[in-house]
Amino acid sequence: MSLNFETLRKNILKYVKEHVNPGRYQHTLRVEETAIRLANQYGADVESVRLAAVLHDACKDFESKKMTKFAKNFLKREGIEIDLSNAGTAILHGLAAADLGYRIYGIKDKDILYAVAFHTTGWYKMSLIGKIIFIADYIEPERNFNKVKKARKLANKDLDRATVFKMKNSIRHLAKDENYIYIESVKIYNHWISK
Amino acid sequence: MSLNFETLRKNILKYVKEHVNPGRYQHTLRVEETAIRLANQYGADVESVRLAAVLHDACKDFESKKMTKFAKNFLKREGIEIDLSNAGTAILHGLAAADLGYRIYGIKDKDILYAVAFHTTGWYKMSLIGKIIFIADYIEPERNFNKVKKARKLANKDLDRATVFKMKNSIRHLAKDENYIYIESVKIYNHWISK
Repeated sequence: MSLNFETLRKNILKYVKEHVNPGRYQHTLRVEETAIRLANQYGADVESVRLAAVLHDACKDFESKKMTKFAKNFLKREGIEIDLSNAGTAILHGLAAADLGYRIYGIKDKDILYAVAFHTTGWYKMSLIGKIIFIADYIEPERNFNKVKKARKLANKDLDRATVFKMKNSIRHLAKDENYIYIESVKIYNHWISK
Repeated sequence: MSLNFETLRKNILKYVKEHVNPGRYQHTLRVEETAIRLANQYGADVESVRLAAVLHDACKDFESKKMTKFAKNFLKREGIEIDLSNAGTAILHGLAAADLGYRIYGIKDKDILYAVAFHTTGWYKMSLIGKIIFIADYIEPERNFNKVKKARKLANKDLDRATVFKMKNSIRHLAKDENYIYIESVKIYNHWISK
């Protein structure tokens, strides 16, 4: 990976800049920064983490049909069967970006691809890279929600606890606002709290 | 129903007294009281509501195997397919009590049986009686949780909104405490918030 890491990162960032709104592009850079910090702290491969970070929201502004098509590519390739019938863009854009990374940028590293694919919902089995992206996206410096201080504190102490914290609070937040709760994310939460 | 209502109610209450702990027996009487008040307010059949109320927790102290057996009887008879593999007693005891009501007490009224069966999770389609039992169980006078005042206020104004309120707060509460969230109850919540 290290041979062409800089080029690959630049190419992906160029793509992101062209395909998402400026605010989201800046968010991407902040997630990368935060992810680097966590990677150093927890001993993860920094280049892998950076690639996952720059890629994670690359498809967020896709129109729905394209996003779904990319997402399905990823799931089919990985042999993952989850119900997408009620999955909104919040769920689909990560899966789509993993497909983009694989097909367009030749990223074959499963830890990177899964980190990107499941950065919103988390997943049953999460690598260190997966947890770092999941958390970095949640606590990057401009995030400003009720419990973000607690999330940042947990992220510095215990990545697994921070992971469960994001999962449970995402569900609580959706329920509070009477928004649709994606069923798979509750199954993933149930898996994590029973560990 | 009215012909032998008093006898039927007495017989069920006798069973409840013999099969649940004294605290739960008193809770049952308070749910009945609250349910009567709501039935009068919203124009539901008071005798049906009272039968559902006295029956609703009749199986709560069953041992797990018996509870599961009764619960499965009810689901099979109604042709309902839901996954019970991770359903705890919180979910099962209502289904079991509906079976008890049908088999032992000859209650055939679906509104009563479904009100009993789904008094914890709610259900996709809920009758007026179903909503009343669902809410009465939540707001009876001795209930004392964070948002019970809000729940009581809503119950007096709008039974549907109170129903969604219980559904969403049950999910929030489980997530807050990192407890298992029964998947079917999230599906039911998703159904209700999309109405």
